[in-house]
Amino acid sequence: MAVNSPLPVAEDLKPVHGIEIGFAEACIKKPDRKDVLVMKLAPTATVSGVFTKNRFCAAPVQVSKANLAAASSGGEKIVALLVNTGNANAGTGDSGLADAQATCAALAKLLDCHPQQILPFSTGVILEPLPVAKVVAGLPDAVANLQLDNWYNAAEAIMTTDTQPKAASRTVTIGGHTVTMTGISKGAGMIKPNMATMLGYLAFDAKVAQPVLDQLVRHAADHSFNCITIDGDTSTNDSFMLIATGAGSLVIDSAGTPEYEALKEAVTDISRNLAQQIIRDGEGATKFITITVEEGASVEECRKIAYSIAHSPLVKTAFFASDPNLGRILAAIGYAGVDDLDVTKLDMYLDDVWVAKNGGRNPDYQEADGQRVMKQSEITVRVKLARGDATATVWTCDLSHDYVTINADYRS
Amino acid sequence: MAVNSPLPVAEDLKPVHGIEIGFAEACIKKPDRKDVLVMKLAPTATVSGVFTKNRFCAAPVQVSKANLAAASSGGEKIVALLVNTGNANAGTGDSGLADAQATCAALAKLLDCHPQQILPFSTGVILEPLPVAKVVAGLPDAVANLQLDNWYNAAEAIMTTDTQPKAASRTVTIGGHTVTMTGISKGAGMIKPNMATMLGYLAFDAKVAQPVLDQLVRHAADHSFNCITIDGDTSTNDSFMLIATGAGSLVIDSAGTPEYEALKEAVTDISRNLAQQIIRDGEGATKFITITVEEGASVEECRKIAYSIAHSPLVKTAFFASDPNLGRILAAIGYAGVDDLDVTKLDMYLDDVWVAKNGGRNPDYQEADGQRVMKQSEITVRVKLARGDATATVWTCDLSHDYVTINADYRS
Repeated sequence: MAVNSPLPVAEDLKPVHGIEIGFAEACIKKPDRKDVLVMKLAPTATVSGVFTKNRFCAAPVQVSKANLAAASSGGEKIVALLVNTGNANAGTGDSGLADAQATCAALAKLLDCHPQQILPFSTGVILEPLPVAKVVAGLPDAVANLQLDNWYNAAEAIMTTDTQPKAASRTVTIGGHTVTMTGISKGAGMIKPNMATMLGYLAFDAKVAQPVLDQLVRHAADHSFNCITIDGDTSTNDSFMLIATGAGSLVIDSAGTPEYEALKEAVTDISRNLAQQIIRDGEGATKFITITVEEGASVEECRKIAYSIAHSPLVKTAFFASDPNLGRILAAIGYAGVDDLDVTKLDMYLDDVWVAKNGGRNPDYQEADGQRVMKQSEITVRVKLARGDATATVWTCDLSHDYVTINADYRS
Repeated sequence: MAVNSPLPVAEDLKPVHGIEIGFAEACIKKPDRKDVLVMKLAPTATVSGVFTKNRFCAAPVQVSKANLAAASSGGEKIVALLVNTGNANAGTGDSGLADAQATCAALAKLLDCHPQQILPFSTGVILEPLPVAKVVAGLPDAVANLQLDNWYNAAEAIMTTDTQPKAASRTVTIGGHTVTMTGISKGAGMIKPNMATMLGYLAFDAKVAQPVLDQLVRHAADHSFNCITIDGDTSTNDSFMLIATGAGSLVIDSAGTPEYEALKEAVTDISRNLAQQIIRDGEGATKFITITVEEGASVEECRKIAYSIAHSPLVKTAFFASDPNLGRILAAIGYAGVDDLDVTKLDMYLDDVWVAKNGGRNPDYQEADGQRVMKQSEITVRVKLARGDATATVWTCDLSHDYVTINADYRS
């Protein structure tokens, strides 16, 4: 189903020393599916994360933020991450917070640590109470099967409306040290992350100081998960967690070194891959669209225009139909909110086809050329603003009948 | 097809003295449909209008704005409005401007006036050159059948993907004077007006001074067309024109009088009716949704939240499915961009059903009650922010399979 996104191969997902993974089938929403995930960290590990900016951020997000802040500022280290699908535990008020803490307490007891050393995560339906007893009942199974080589199962355990698991692995050599990194993510609707997306987890086996890891996770998120959108709906549960297990030989104590730059590049690359897998498996997606806005006065205005195009239902349905009704893209640029935009200097390309020139139809543009590109499953829209040097790229998908079908039927 | 919106009855649309209407079938995009409209004004008439804020505003919008500004500031009076469907003449650069002016010149010749005394309007596909010759060829027919009693034909002549014409009439008595008002509008996609919508025309037979009319049209637009959205796509061609023909006995020279207030109320009421007809006939609409946000710190933040709900594809598909998956509404409130929103004080209602209380699920809320309301064809979402006294209302519709079908097929 996903657009040019082959199914991950379990054998290609490399174990990362310093992180063990266990899962369970806890029947949270449906039977016979993995819906509880535990990731247990070595004592050498550091963890950093970015979370949704949605004001209705979920109870587990609030608890994870607090526990992570305590650990990052010298408190007891994080011991494990706990994820459940089937229920978001968002819009659940004070009882939702107590529920999230109850699941942490139950796992802490099994792992012989304090509840504050657990980071909880949830995904699923909003405004419904978390079935705490079911989550807790699944924990002994998940802890019993903790092992290094469980990433494929982990990717499956965090799926909701995803049609396939999302994962990626890399081995890079930095300063003579081999670093192994593996990550997983999930979508597939309510996707317009603002800080990070629900859910991405990326681990590698270097040892990284906390402030450096904090800087790294923000950079990686800003250049990957924070550049994707399916439907413009920023979830209540978005979280992207970066874990440096410290089990390998590479040690990074400060940013700005060549080793840090190499690690940053590798982490950002794999993050982008995980983020793009979410778009390729977006609800109902039939096309993968890259929108690049160039020559802007600021990155912010480039992103504004790129998101305006990416969120337009008219643009998205035209992509679905392979219809080069490209004036809809100009309209979306025009209402993006860049109030002093001089459209008479604006150019637009569809892949190699020059469609709009100085704000009007390029006299050399032929509809057959636009039609040819629109039929592809991968399309790049390039907009040149002639206002400056800034650039931004956003990845999105089309809007199809299946999106409506899936979301008119999600809870049944 | 439209949601609880009966077809206008031609006999109920009252002629407004001082404005004559003619139409033609000019085969601009398709044969056998009215696609050119001329509205000729009495010398006593004043005209005011609001136009799209889309930076890619169409060539006819640019010409109309310039001609209207000249007339309003003491130049020669506006003699006629000219509308074509089938082509938006937007994203067409300098040649588009010349095309719009050419149609004005042709009509001016037939009406024995200057081209600057014509206001041109277009609606249809963007980024394609206006077939000027076809428009011009239709003008003699349109001028030949100019008559007072042609409003139903006018409503039909401005339709694009609308499934039915939109029109309304009122007779009000103000200060002992009878005022007759009739208006028409069209949608049905690319609807999130920012100033006004493509296209609304409202005429009445009082005599109103230009600055007063300018004030009146802004008030009416802000409380009607500027409160609706179908898909969040602000068109390049939005225009709402208010015409005071001056043919009746009521004369209004200044705002702030009881007569002005009565006229304002009547004009706003009929504008709201015309705007809501657009939503009821929104592309693929099966439900009419009213979103009211109360107790905000400012009208602006109330509107932000209302539009965030109204534009969420997840909320719109849930309405289509009659699925009380109401956590999606909370998520949309949370990412609306009101950064200091305290969700623990927020309440939400669906018609009479109290769904969310202090940011969580109301303990007394029963899903059966939510289900009952979601099945209705008219639904009100009410959000209380507990931050102040401001209120805003937005009208929208659901997102159905037919929206995708219509917009994946619009040009064929």
